[in-house]
Amino acid sequence: MASAATDTATSVKPTPALKDELDIVIPTIRNLDFLEMWRPFFQPYHLIIVQDGDPTKNINVPDGFDYELYNRNDINKILGPKASCISFKDSACRCFGYMVSKKKYIYTIDDDCFVANDPSGKPINALEQHIKNLLSPSTPFFFNTLYDPYADGADFVRGYPFSLREGIPTAVSHGLWLNIPDYDAPTQLVKPLERNKRYVDAVLTIPKGTLFPMCGMNLAFDRDLIGPAMYFGLMGDGQPIGRYDDMWAGWCVKVICDHLGLGVKTGLPYIWHSKASNPFVNLRKEYKGIFWQEEIIPFFQTAVLPKDCTTVQKCYIELSKQVKEKLGKVDPYFDKLADAMVTWIDAWDELNSTSGGAKLPNSRSK
Amino acid sequence: MASAATDTATSVKPTPALKDELDIVIPTIRNLDFLEMWRPFFQPYHLIIVQDGDPTKNINVPDGFDYELYNRNDINKILGPKASCISFKDSACRCFGYMVSKKKYIYTIDDDCFVANDPSGKPINALEQHIKNLLSPSTPFFFNTLYDPYADGADFVRGYPFSLREGIPTAVSHGLWLNIPDYDAPTQLVKPLERNKRYVDAVLTIPKGTLFPMCGMNLAFDRDLIGPAMYFGLMGDGQPIGRYDDMWAGWCVKVICDHLGLGVKTGLPYIWHSKASNPFVNLRKEYKGIFWQEEIIPFFQTAVLPKDCTTVQKCYIELSKQVKEKLGKVDPYFDKLADAMVTWIDAWDELNSTSGGAKLPNSRSK
Repeated sequence: MASAATDTATSVKPTPALKDELDIVIPTIRNLDFLEMWRPFFQPYHLIIVQDGDPTKNINVPDGFDYELYNRNDINKILGPKASCISFKDSACRCFGYMVSKKKYIYTIDDDCFVANDPSGKPINALEQHIKNLLSPSTPFFFNTLYDPYADGADFVRGYPFSLREGIPTAVSHGLWLNIPDYDAPTQLVKPLERNKRYVDAVLTIPKGTLFPMCGMNLAFDRDLIGPAMYFGLMGDGQPIGRYDDMWAGWCVKVICDHLGLGVKTGLPYIWHSKASNPFVNLRKEYKGIFWQEEIIPFFQTAVLPKDCTTVQKCYIELSKQVKEKLGKVDPYFDKLADAMVTWIDAWDELNSTSGGAKLPNSRSK
Repeated sequence: MASAATDTATSVKPTPALKDELDIVIPTIRNLDFLEMWRPFFQPYHLIIVQDGDPTKNINVPDGFDYELYNRNDINKILGPKASCISFKDSACRCFGYMVSKKKYIYTIDDDCFVANDPSGKPINALEQHIKNLLSPSTPFFFNTLYDPYADGADFVRGYPFSLREGIPTAVSHGLWLNIPDYDAPTQLVKPLERNKRYVDAVLTIPKGTLFPMCGMNLAFDRDLIGPAMYFGLMGDGQPIGRYDDMWAGWCVKVICDHLGLGVKTGLPYIWHSKASNPFVNLRKEYKGIFWQEEIIPFFQTAVLPKDCTTVQKCYIELSKQVKEKLGKVDPYFDKLADAMVTWIDAWDELNSTSGGAKLPNSRSK
């Protein structure tokens, strides 16, 4: 009996977690050969590919993946004048994919990220770990010294209040990177050979009231809980900065999660980040951000949302007003960004209204 | 030339870090055979042994260690009526050792803690890692997703404000435990077989405004920066609770560190915690604490120290007033504890006055 059950179990492939509830969003300017390595983990899921740059270029997607692909012409057609809020010539365009998804969960990954191995040499199913992170609660109100109390073999330690042990829903799972670390241009220039070799076997909740640098390379979130705040801002073509798209989203998301009682986790899973971007190009993109962030971060650290902001949209619109009022002084760019934040919410609501919204015709399946 | 230099280097034993600036404080009721395993790491340092329980009992210390030992009679003789603030029949008595030390740094360890191995099988010099933690800055104002930015092969990631990269002085290094985790009695009862096997290769700063459960089993701190706040409270004989000594100290310490701009780290190093204490005995000691902590933690989370509290002593006296005012309602125990907090500071200042104070006659060296 036991062995028959085992036979059955091994002959039936288990359905991957959240197979019909999660989209994988990939921004790209090139053929997606990197998906070959991810095939065992990603193939059951639907992909949303956001093609950046020249829309006439043909992007190859390996056979067997179920995907929809949007280029700039598609974005302009679908959003009309509101397409102005979606960045061009910058991977910030990925947030268009969050907007058109109809699923509850999003995983987004860069096309230079490969499967990493854990210390035992086993390939890491990054998506599976993100799903674990999202489906288990967060604990932002008190620090647990053994890290994730819901992990196998762990728990809350002595002195952890019992009333806080149920945790709160998790909105974001921020994964890390082995090999090329996510450094800014000055650090890249100073430490060109530094590689991240440290596998830290932990997931932890970022405490309430603490901001963090959210990297968009390997990131998952609950679209229903926090989607409208996952706006990657105005970067790239025609904008004075780049490489702050995910940072901007992370600061907005964290302030709103703290306000709404939602959790943000960081740590596992790791991906293998294959190649460092050009530090000289990065410096050009970043240099304004490097001094602006000295004002942006205190702004977010002290931002307070009023009690009547009970939805992500309301929080985000309120935040856009505060950005205009307080960061507008830093540079006119923030006025434009604040307006784009409002446009983004308008567009989000239009595409995600319960009445259905426009039918999106870009689904392809091979 | 190169090989001659190497020869010299290997024939001269390097002086261990902080050899003359750090005391190791050990509370105990038994012979200290556990020191044999620690000999390679601890022998160069001075030990302060605080003998709990029956003062007529003889405690064996292995040969070759330099130590001073205090039993209850010594404590009563040195502190007189102020000895009432030092717990009896509870390892909370260890804080007497912090008070009589004349060194800048303290490391304290329980006598059921052994040397752990890292994943490569190498014995971990816990003290060396604590010293690294204490001598490098803390970063409580913004979270670094690659953990300790000062660790080898790590740095601050993209989006981390440059103005915060110098960090602030580290006051506390909280180490962890492999094998027996530091669980409360209910968790021990529910999971009697759970062992901590997860070696998390990270040190991180606990963010400003976040409390944590500080365990006294494997703990180091800078006595000059935070010593007077490291009071382990009233536990054990004649008191209604036990096993909250280190928790109490941790909550006070964190609030004061946040106020004074000092850092608290947790993570590496691990020790091997050899045996679980009796969960039934623990339940008796803890059960009041388990519901009291539901009020204590919000108290500390909202405690605000006035600007004129510019020293640890002033902060601690202010905190004792707030404890009396706000926790006194919870139970008369907190009135008594608030008084003991004041007595502790009086005793600390008496023994640590610049004029020298009483000569302590308990130094022994073998």
